[in-house]
Amino acid sequence: MQDVSRRSFLKISAVGAGALALGASSATAAQNAKDVKFDEEYDIVIIGTGFAGLAAAIKASGRGKKVLVLEKMGRAGGNSVINGGNMAAPMNKFQVAQGIKDSKELFIADAVKDGLGLNHTDLLGVMFDRSNDAVDLLTSCGAEFSDKLIFESGHSVARSLQSTNGSGSGYIQPMMGKLQNDPNVTIKTRTKFDDFIVDDSGRVVGVEAREEYKFDPKLFSDDLENKSGEKKSYKAKDGVLLASGGYGRDLWYRQIQDPRVVPSIDSTNHPGSSAGAMLAANRIGAFTLLTSWIQFLPYCSPDEKGFGAAVNFTNHCCNTYGLTVDPKTGKRFMDEHAGRKIKADACFKVIAESEKNDNYPVNVCDSQAVAARNPVYTSRPLEAGVVKKFNTLEELAKAYNLPLEPFLKTVADYNSYVKAGKDPEFGKVVDKLDGIDVSKPPFYASRTMPKVHHTMGGLEINTKAQVISSLTHEPIPGLWAAGEVTGGVHGASRLGTYAILDCMVFGMIAGETIGA
Amino acid sequence: MQDVSRRSFLKISAVGAGALALGASSATAAQNAKDVKFDEEYDIVIIGTGFAGLAAAIKASGRGKKVLVLEKMGRAGGNSVINGGNMAAPMNKFQVAQGIKDSKELFIADAVKDGLGLNHTDLLGVMFDRSNDAVDLLTSCGAEFSDKLIFESGHSVARSLQSTNGSGSGYIQPMMGKLQNDPNVTIKTRTKFDDFIVDDSGRVVGVEAREEYKFDPKLFSDDLENKSGEKKSYKAKDGVLLASGGYGRDLWYRQIQDPRVVPSIDSTNHPGSSAGAMLAANRIGAFTLLTSWIQFLPYCSPDEKGFGAAVNFTNHCCNTYGLTVDPKTGKRFMDEHAGRKIKADACFKVIAESEKNDNYPVNVCDSQAVAARNPVYTSRPLEAGVVKKFNTLEELAKAYNLPLEPFLKTVADYNSYVKAGKDPEFGKVVDKLDGIDVSKPPFYASRTMPKVHHTMGGLEINTKAQVISSLTHEPIPGLWAAGEVTGGVHGASRLGTYAILDCMVFGMIAGETIGA
Repeated sequence: MQDVSRRSFLKISAVGAGALALGASSATAAQNAKDVKFDEEYDIVIIGTGFAGLAAAIKASGRGKKVLVLEKMGRAGGNSVINGGNMAAPMNKFQVAQGIKDSKELFIADAVKDGLGLNHTDLLGVMFDRSNDAVDLLTSCGAEFSDKLIFESGHSVARSLQSTNGSGSGYIQPMMGKLQNDPNVTIKTRTKFDDFIVDDSGRVVGVEAREEYKFDPKLFSDDLENKSGEKKSYKAKDGVLLASGGYGRDLWYRQIQDPRVVPSIDSTNHPGSSAGAMLAANRIGAFTLLTSWIQFLPYCSPDEKGFGAAVNFTNHCCNTYGLTVDPKTGKRFMDEHAGRKIKADACFKVIAESEKNDNYPVNVCDSQAVAARNPVYTSRPLEAGVVKKFNTLEELAKAYNLPLEPFLKTVADYNSYVKAGKDPEFGKVVDKLDGIDVSKPPFYASRTMPKVHHTMGGLEINTKAQVISSLTHEPIPGLWAAGEVTGGVHGASRLGTYAILDCMVFGMIAGETIGA
Repeated sequence: MQDVSRRSFLKISAVGAGALALGASSATAAQNAKDVKFDEEYDIVIIGTGFAGLAAAIKASGRGKKVLVLEKMGRAGGNSVINGGNMAAPMNKFQVAQGIKDSKELFIADAVKDGLGLNHTDLLGVMFDRSNDAVDLLTSCGAEFSDKLIFESGHSVARSLQSTNGSGSGYIQPMMGKLQNDPNVTIKTRTKFDDFIVDDSGRVVGVEAREEYKFDPKLFSDDLENKSGEKKSYKAKDGVLLASGGYGRDLWYRQIQDPRVVPSIDSTNHPGSSAGAMLAANRIGAFTLLTSWIQFLPYCSPDEKGFGAAVNFTNHCCNTYGLTVDPKTGKRFMDEHAGRKIKADACFKVIAESEKNDNYPVNVCDSQAVAARNPVYTSRPLEAGVVKKFNTLEELAKAYNLPLEPFLKTVADYNSYVKAGKDPEFGKVVDKLDGIDVSKPPFYASRTMPKVHHTMGGLEINTKAQVISSLTHEPIPGLWAAGEVTGGVHGASRLGTYAILDCMVFGMIAGETIGA
């Protein structure tokens, strides 16, 4: 199977190769500035309109910089606008007011545990230090946070903020609103970054792009095959920020990095999440790390495509306050509050118990759990039909074909663990769940199928968001990067809610320092 | 600690940065052929004199090609000349004669198990198919194999050949002998590859290098800081093969890829094993995978530096036929015949049981095990003092400070498992060890400290050893790569003895096809 898939790639990818190679200045190098007549000039060019790109644009404009922001898709926001909107924010005002003890050491240690020690801890330290600056930036744009802190899986303490609308759009829309009225900032959607423009010293001085680009989700590799749009060259007098995101939907690159991720595997990502921009940086001296670590989100539903509506419910109502069972046995099989890699691996094992690979785990919680979280976490997937509501556990068991007696015993045992404040089976932190168990009807349930979510791999940067050169071991002049296109901060597996802070902080830093 | 180390890098690496950047054609791109006056012309230029480079040179010369082979060190052979000389060779004549059933499926499945499913199985399939061609090439140069097959850890069957002298030099010396008398082939040692030379179409047409180069092991990054030698340009009319090896001794690059690998951690590699040449390929459109997977060899001794003399003894006498105990408890703690990652992880855990991080596991075997393997596996480390010989198990226990009664019980239990053909504790394949247990004096022992050995990361190649471009998703014209500088074949963790076959096969393929 795997070999067949790889070969079918090569066949498909051969189609567009020749033409694009000719289109570039050479098949290996970025365009040299000597050969370029720039169409437009800016101080700073930013590639990508996710959290990192927009945070950078706001900060740069605040310093009077003339900023161009490029977005290849028709709408702004990338994956940032379709995620759950939960942001780790250690030392935020709610956490302090609620007397929850957090620290830089704990914030880093939590990440390193799930990241298997591969984390670049200096970057995590900067995220901790700038946490409240990121919150302030979002607040200044009009973003609203709930005072109910998220106690995210894999974290030792509750430290994550949730947007009141239960989505990353609760941050992207306010930032876009601010930028759209900003005379210093030009945002071009449907404009595809193709390559960097460098001068003789190797400094990045601009980018080549195509306006009127039409992304085509039917192509195997849009980066390679799509030739739409009109070529433009933009000068970036002070520098370029690459904030182009990860490669969760790059069917070509992701399977090279991890052959198990065959093209048919679904992803939470928007269809444009590809490696092309990151690889262009590679060709001017940047280099990647951790690219074979591709994270699966263990909260997704097999009953809907892509990110879907069930994620926040499964994660925050069920995995935090409820339990997850194997439908074959009716029994728990993992610490529901563990990090993503541990849970995704455990879920895949259960799913594979059926010949058709469809023995999807069932997540269960009760009305207390639903009431403890943002109401939209449950109302939205209920409406979409991917979460179901039951008056009794018996009805729930029947609907998911769970063996009744073992399931009822599992719930009774779990409730006794919550009462005792100790889970002898899987070590879940049941003493930190405010006594919420699975006992008060109505009951709610969802099913789990992990999907490709976050790609750990990316470019090596320093704590100033400067991209490091493999030739000089120093920053590449004129080039910054922030967010999922970088690698290292999260190690082998990212903790939930750390991504938004990562993007916001290194985006802000780039916006504060490019051309300073 | 870790942060301090990373910062100290930056300081050190700043020293040489400016000068080298100016020396290159630009800070980001390879030299363009238009700007080059070539000093010498060849059909094929090969970078590296390990198994891959030499196999390629022999095959290319056999087709009448004029070949230049570059080696930055003073002696040829890289890591190939200092390893254990054991080569997986499925379907070799001894295996067939001994009636051992092997197959392509089994050969691939063994690798994928230790490689955690990250292997590029199409490459493994080619290795299987060309196994006897690699053996024939070595034999034709005069290499000699023992008829005692190696049953390497992590393998399901015995399939690996050993050189009669117990070292990779048993293959490198015959190949070098053949090449030194070959009028088609020029070998330049102390000649450091710096960068590729490409033409306007992106085709690799030559290399820049420095003759009279003096490698300096005292430098933190020789690639960055060493400015010795005289610049030369060599034309490669048909193409260039990159066979420059891994980055096990690149203190800068390896810690970026895995921050736990701090500079003080020892390696089995020769001091010149660095990432520089691989990263130069990155800058002309190649790209890497699996770079954060750095393998530790769980057979090394804390009582000597580098690869040392103990490896073959610990691996083939003790881990295959004997047992390994935790000196604190006198008990076994792992399947001694498991793959390298499983064992290295287990050993690190035991080592960390003491405050000083020096609770090194003790490997034990008896005279039967020593007699079953190449005698030099034991005589050489005995002479070096890193393996010790004892008349009784009591003496052995005393020498390593093992708690006597638990240790004697462990040995008695183990011997009963061998007799019963089943290891109920760790599942070792004791039924496949010809009845050899730990009972016949004298007894032998060594200590274990895993060292950085093989770097899984490298360039993406296809089954023809062509390097794939991130821009075209097609081969980069004029560029081939083979051996440890490539990534994918071994997945997350390489099985023992698969490396030599990997290097030989893809080196041969490049030598057969460049300019064909």
